[in-house]
Amino acid sequence: MKIHLITVGDEILIGQVVDTNSAWMARQLNLAGASISGISSVGDHEEDIRSTLKEALGQADAVLMTGGLGPTKDDITKKTLAAFFGVELEFHQPTYARIVRFFERLGRKTTEGHRQQCFMPTNATLLPNKMGTAPGMWFEHNGKIVVSMPGVPYEMEYLMEHEVIPRLKRFFPGFPIAHRTILTAGEGESRVAEQLEELEDELPPHIKLAYLPNLGQVRLRLSGSLPDEVQLNRQLDEFAQKIVDKLGALVFGFETDSLEAAIGRILKERGKMLVTAESCTGGYLAHLITSVPGSSDYFKGSLIAYSNEVKMKQLDVSPQTLDTYGAVSEQTVREMVRGALKLLEADVAIAVSGIAGPGGGTQEKPVGTIWMAVGDEHEVLTRRIYAGKDRLKNIEYSSTHALNFIRQFLLKEREAKA
Amino acid sequence: MKIHLITVGDEILIGQVVDTNSAWMARQLNLAGASISGISSVGDHEEDIRSTLKEALGQADAVLMTGGLGPTKDDITKKTLAAFFGVELEFHQPTYARIVRFFERLGRKTTEGHRQQCFMPTNATLLPNKMGTAPGMWFEHNGKIVVSMPGVPYEMEYLMEHEVIPRLKRFFPGFPIAHRTILTAGEGESRVAEQLEELEDELPPHIKLAYLPNLGQVRLRLSGSLPDEVQLNRQLDEFAQKIVDKLGALVFGFETDSLEAAIGRILKERGKMLVTAESCTGGYLAHLITSVPGSSDYFKGSLIAYSNEVKMKQLDVSPQTLDTYGAVSEQTVREMVRGALKLLEADVAIAVSGIAGPGGGTQEKPVGTIWMAVGDEHEVLTRRIYAGKDRLKNIEYSSTHALNFIRQFLLKEREAKA
Repeated sequence: MKIHLITVGDEILIGQVVDTNSAWMARQLNLAGASISGISSVGDHEEDIRSTLKEALGQADAVLMTGGLGPTKDDITKKTLAAFFGVELEFHQPTYARIVRFFERLGRKTTEGHRQQCFMPTNATLLPNKMGTAPGMWFEHNGKIVVSMPGVPYEMEYLMEHEVIPRLKRFFPGFPIAHRTILTAGEGESRVAEQLEELEDELPPHIKLAYLPNLGQVRLRLSGSLPDEVQLNRQLDEFAQKIVDKLGALVFGFETDSLEAAIGRILKERGKMLVTAESCTGGYLAHLITSVPGSSDYFKGSLIAYSNEVKMKQLDVSPQTLDTYGAVSEQTVREMVRGALKLLEADVAIAVSGIAGPGGGTQEKPVGTIWMAVGDEHEVLTRRIYAGKDRLKNIEYSSTHALNFIRQFLLKEREAKA
Repeated sequence: MKIHLITVGDEILIGQVVDTNSAWMARQLNLAGASISGISSVGDHEEDIRSTLKEALGQADAVLMTGGLGPTKDDITKKTLAAFFGVELEFHQPTYARIVRFFERLGRKTTEGHRQQCFMPTNATLLPNKMGTAPGMWFEHNGKIVVSMPGVPYEMEYLMEHEVIPRLKRFFPGFPIAHRTILTAGEGESRVAEQLEELEDELPPHIKLAYLPNLGQVRLRLSGSLPDEVQLNRQLDEFAQKIVDKLGALVFGFETDSLEAAIGRILKERGKMLVTAESCTGGYLAHLITSVPGSSDYFKGSLIAYSNEVKMKQLDVSPQTLDTYGAVSEQTVREMVRGALKLLEADVAIAVSGIAGPGGGTQEKPVGTIWMAVGDEHEVLTRRIYAGKDRLKNIEYSSTHALNFIRQFLLKEREAKA
């Protein structure tokens, strides 16, 4: 199935917003066995939307549109689609009732704009949107499909996952495509590839291996397509297992798993409570850990010590250590771990202190220098990494790295006991 | 001048790369007085490139293409352009000599791929590329312009700045375009639109107002185009001021500002130190605050109290309060603020406690119920909001809401003193 994506919105054409929706959609659709024939961005102009849609429908089996469905005057996708299909807009009472309830719960009243949002093209199948007010719309037109979704990323993602992709698969049944994703952390793309060189040569031509690196993690994706789905799945499982055997502890999970969830499982299994003591990561590490549902079972909390005063008073880092070695040093993160274990009465603690930038760098400790320590009452391990020059990337990279450091510490502990 | 952008490359259609080039180009071209009529991404396929180019040239005065010029991609863009214009490819000796020198300086030899890179369509004006091997190409065709550039961001940016934009301005002397962006928080898109309804009717036809909502914030963008640049800027400033007057404290900044930066400025101006006490936001609020460079000037740190034990021991929340009202209650967040002010010795504290989900909801307190409190030694304000059902969205939404709550508290304090 060939799909064309259209993003509607002046904000993209003036460069105020980067179109991340299209990349997300392309990735998901590829996984679902579709190929993207093109991506177009158009402004909030009826004529442009119409001609782009017409052109796209000439090339592709389905056209997925995002944007231009809000309650304000500049949102015109719906009107344009009705005109394109030659149908009227009709007031849809159930949608209005849902919006009214949604706002009642927030203690707010609906506006005339919301009422206007409930006029729908008569040929649209409405796709329920649990994340916002505007439903998605599904049109069948001369054996082809047109879908219109809101441009707000989490609303679009919800609709794609729960409505659009399942419907497209039913509408365009094809060759079964299947995937296995193996998640690794701790080595870069080329090191991982080196270890899998021989195995890659063994792969049959209908199975491909892709490397998707991001922030110190490398996802390995096996993709295959074969008329015999059972055989395909067996082969994929077999090669996935070979990769796991080869890479050992570099592998932390599969599919949509995450490092933070992997750590959670280990901690829960052992009945241990984790805490963090953060300086440069400023709470981002704790955020990653608490983004996992149920993390309160193994995460007690965190002390974010953004000032030296808090490091000394709450985490018992000694003034001598800060004076002699500085806040970004092995000695400081070591004392932060001990302080956090004591203050928050936990079993395992991790501490991070670094220079996120853009200011604060020196010749000896340039921006991107990060110290971290992880430990329990028996042992504290430390590590220094060099991230980059961008503040946000440094925060994200060092937090991800810290998660893997916790994992390695917990695995090492298990080995020692075995 | 109307411009269409075309990005060439399979990596975009499979979602492996987000097309950030187009947003950068659109911003620069808008500032130069051009308007973007559309953006297209196509794969490395001759037929797709040709039909997209033809379509784009039908609508726009100029088409700018990026990608498909590297030594490994078989010159697909260049070959396609030569065929499109009906001209031959010719070996260009000066370009080859430059590439050879470039690699000699790096102590490397050129490959056959590099020689192939030096065959150019005979009708191209070559644009010198100081950042890489492939020059840009400028074509004039029936009074319209086609430009082809490498897709590597810094090469494209160099060529745009030094060659393409200056040439376009000479070729299409015309109308300046300008924008003003006003940032608001605290009301939804429709409520803001309601307050600006009369003002929207006053706008002259050459000035447009767009609403861009995201997570409890709404950005308002005024865009205009007029031959007289001075008059245009005066009018935009005037309407931007009218919007600010109308919306009052809903406005927190302009252009690329953020709520976290706005709070930072107020705190710094008053020499006050902020801390957070977080339960359900789990560090995300502190992360937003510390994502601003220099935030250590006004942010001391945070106590993330993910367990009731930490709430009691470190934040002095009384066991009676937790027993009687629960961890998600007005009373608890009030005590958390007092506890955080004392523990971290700060001037202002904010506390958030809620049910992020998916578990933990009850009839009385469903998932998405969030209590927050902000205060200093004199006064503590509280607020309850209902976010949604999605855990991550609840964390993000309540953190953004909390940022605005801090801002409102600080502004109220200033008013009270005035």
